[in-house]
Amino acid sequence: MSKILREHIEKIISLTDEEFEFVLSHFSQKRFLKHQFLIQEGDFVNNDFFILNGLLKASHRNEENKEHILQFATENSWITDPQAYNNQTIATLNIQCLEDGNSLFITLENREKLCNSLHKMESFFRKKATKEHILLQRRILCLISNNAKNRYEDLLKQYPSLIQRVPKTMIASYLGVSRETLSRLITN
Amino acid sequence: MSKILREHIEKIISLTDEEFEFVLSHFSQKRFLKHQFLIQEGDFVNNDFFILNGLLKASHRNEENKEHILQFATENSWITDPQAYNNQTIATLNIQCLEDGNSLFITLENREKLCNSLHKMESFFRKKATKEHILLQRRILCLISNNAKNRYEDLLKQYPSLIQRVPKTMIASYLGVSRETLSRLITN
Repeated sequence: MSKILREHIEKIISLTDEEFEFVLSHFSQKRFLKHQFLIQEGDFVNNDFFILNGLLKASHRNEENKEHILQFATENSWITDPQAYNNQTIATLNIQCLEDGNSLFITLENREKLCNSLHKMESFFRKKATKEHILLQRRILCLISNNAKNRYEDLLKQYPSLIQRVPKTMIASYLGVSRETLSRLITN
Repeated sequence: MSKILREHIEKIISLTDEEFEFVLSHFSQKRFLKHQFLIQEGDFVNNDFFILNGLLKASHRNEENKEHILQFATENSWITDPQAYNNQTIATLNIQCLEDGNSLFITLENREKLCNSLHKMESFFRKKATKEHILLQRRILCLISNNAKNRYEDLLKQYPSLIQRVPKTMIASYLGVSRETLSRLITN
């Protein structure tokens, strides 16, 4: 299954077999089950998860216990509470599994070691962060311009199978729209 | 004025005098005037601007010509059209100066050269991107949870002087709220 990680990294940089073995030695494997929490609000967050298969959501619960979904993650994507992971503070997000699956995870300490010892991997993580920046900024633009249609289309583009895999209420929560608005978007 | 850039970089990594001279040799200086566009929709985007002083906004105009402000930039911050800059496509954003000021800018080619030749700078840009990721994700969460009060407070924290420097309509556009909602936020 480590092949999936290698292909993912090699979309951005190339690695020799030896280098990839070195990269892989910084990761550990974790299997997860539907309903399980990988990170729970209040936890100390030590890991960033690369998803090999399965489906997860990162969400926040406000004071009225209403859930807002910040991110979905499927195969070939990363998920953590970035603020808690990078600043080594406690989680404000919940990361919960919506389907059984497998992941490779890296601790912050190991990520920093890897970046220090292999310049190429620092480059990989920089370029990955830049790509994510572009996606997040586009999502913000769709949110402030109140363009739910574009947000929905972007979501479909990013995760084509999502609409079949999660309840509509979760899609609505991710988009920041009501269940009724989502129904209109799906019909049109 | 290059001292401002050095202090900004050295918040994340440390550089010798020689290394900083090398870094600086990859930048050029640009003075800008109020109302001037640094980037206009449709332009080819070659530069990322580090602002030494002054104030700018990055915004998008939709099909109905309504402006949505994605970002403000003051001293010690960076501004460009990230999608156009990183993917070398044409701009979909406008970057306009709201006050006279000065910047140091770096071309994509020079940024990549700098990252390749000085591992520390690759590390700087990776860590800077990670910090931005956290801020953008927080803004998304405030937007989907419809928490205009938190969005307003985050903006004040990030740019304490902004409220005195730009018209209220621009603040409202950045927050994605009406002028009336903003008035309520300011009063409370």
